[in-house]
Amino acid sequence: MDHAEQVAEVLFAEQQRLVDEFGEVDGSQFRPHPWERAGLGGGRACILEDGEVFERSGINVSLVRGSRVPPTIAGSRPHTAGLPYAATGISLVLHPRNPYVPAFHANFRYFEVTGADWWFGGGCDLTPAYGFDDDAIGFHQALKSWCDRHDAAWYPAWKATCDEYFTIGHRGEMRGIGGVFFDYLSDPAPEGFDRCWRAITDGVATILPAYLPILQRRRTMPYGERQRAWQLFRRGRYVEFNLVYDRGTRFGLETRGNSEAILMSLPPLARWGFDIQPEPGSPEMDLARFLQPHDWASRR
Amino acid sequence: MDHAEQVAEVLFAEQQRLVDEFGEVDGSQFRPHPWERAGLGGGRACILEDGEVFERSGINVSLVRGSRVPPTIAGSRPHTAGLPYAATGISLVLHPRNPYVPAFHANFRYFEVTGADWWFGGGCDLTPAYGFDDDAIGFHQALKSWCDRHDAAWYPAWKATCDEYFTIGHRGEMRGIGGVFFDYLSDPAPEGFDRCWRAITDGVATILPAYLPILQRRRTMPYGERQRAWQLFRRGRYVEFNLVYDRGTRFGLETRGNSEAILMSLPPLARWGFDIQPEPGSPEMDLARFLQPHDWASRR
Repeated sequence: MDHAEQVAEVLFAEQQRLVDEFGEVDGSQFRPHPWERAGLGGGRACILEDGEVFERSGINVSLVRGSRVPPTIAGSRPHTAGLPYAATGISLVLHPRNPYVPAFHANFRYFEVTGADWWFGGGCDLTPAYGFDDDAIGFHQALKSWCDRHDAAWYPAWKATCDEYFTIGHRGEMRGIGGVFFDYLSDPAPEGFDRCWRAITDGVATILPAYLPILQRRRTMPYGERQRAWQLFRRGRYVEFNLVYDRGTRFGLETRGNSEAILMSLPPLARWGFDIQPEPGSPEMDLARFLQPHDWASRR
Repeated sequence: MDHAEQVAEVLFAEQQRLVDEFGEVDGSQFRPHPWERAGLGGGRACILEDGEVFERSGINVSLVRGSRVPPTIAGSRPHTAGLPYAATGISLVLHPRNPYVPAFHANFRYFEVTGADWWFGGGCDLTPAYGFDDDAIGFHQALKSWCDRHDAAWYPAWKATCDEYFTIGHRGEMRGIGGVFFDYLSDPAPEGFDRCWRAITDGVATILPAYLPILQRRRTMPYGERQRAWQLFRRGRYVEFNLVYDRGTRFGLETRGNSEAILMSLPPLARWGFDIQPEPGSPEMDLARFLQPHDWASRR
């Protein structure tokens, strides 16, 4: 069993654990959709739609292999050009029904180029429609704790990368409150792979403690049509980010990947209106300050 | 008054005529949103949202000038590089409420590079959620009649360009039933500009006869939740096309244009679900045959 298989095996198990946990929170089951592409590999997308807590949620794990590293990767990593590769990863997107519960996204992936190189990448970020300081602080502190257990340099660097990456250029705002985002995490030391892999499994294990307290705090907050309309409008921005800027989405669509699995990140329902401006002083207006980079983890 | 101003003046008048006409069909008024960008120019977006017939519709006319032709244009037209330019155009997007009424899009634009070149571009296309042969035939015949009044070679060429352009690559289907799409229409003969401009004004005048009969035929058809859900799902595909593939949208967002005017093309509400498959033999399933290139104009 090579490292890619070893990682995939753990990620499939983690997927099941997350599916069980979030399914229990919701009170309904994720449906498994195994998929395969001839000569490439496959995966399993677990989907929960129209649930009590989650309006649309997906957790996907895949393991694919190819005979030649894709051009976009070979471009930035020339020593990998033309070589066979394996890629595996888990990605998770939760779109809750209650407008006060933020949407959540996490992704962890492993890329291995036979005989040449390997690295991990990924991240976690949170997208609220209504901002709460406690949620933003708690979320970033959970991510910082995870990072700090492995390398004190990671959180500040990965947080900055995340703030930059999740920017909706044409709107001049972030998709949400950020989180962490990293790529090309590797370590050439003899125990390097094990060390990185321990950090990654610890990251996957941080999904629940980072997100569940927020979900539990907000899920029973009463809301009405105004909050629902605002949530749908903010989801429109989520769609704009994912389809215009998100590299994974664009790469996946361009290379004709499994479009249902790629677009499981899109919200169940989204709204657009011309020049929607929240009232000054309203909670909707207050969201704006959450959508700019901010040092949440050091707040108390 | 140069040609760009002359074209813009007519387009602003046509905008008013269309706003009046579609406003009357709807029973409510388009709201005008004039906009300006310092040193560039401006325009007027007329928007009707939450109407009786139209759930979200916009008609935008703009006239902008710049000191240097944008890189994307200079790239394909090297003789224009570094020169001042003027650009004006009208674009119209109608998202009706009734799922049986197709969405409609039209765009006509004029680009002038001082002392070097000029051309017209544009197109019209139709995006139904439910396919009707009569609508597809009538729409394409109206466009063919317009083209044939000016040049018999235009319709077949522009129809093929439209079929190709409005393809959602990752879905293997067109956004709708196509129409016509053209660019770099020019004519160096002494009367060349007048000839092209006559054809373009005739194209703008074709918007109503091409679309209104379809709208009137379908707008009172009763529908229920099933049709509404299908419409919202199909609008998701519309969003996918516009944000992932549409060159005008992507160019506008990348160059930090007026994002509200650019994204007025997006539907008011759109839906995504995992691997939605209509029942075999259903009207929803029948849409698929409309989303592949088809010679509608020669059908009777």
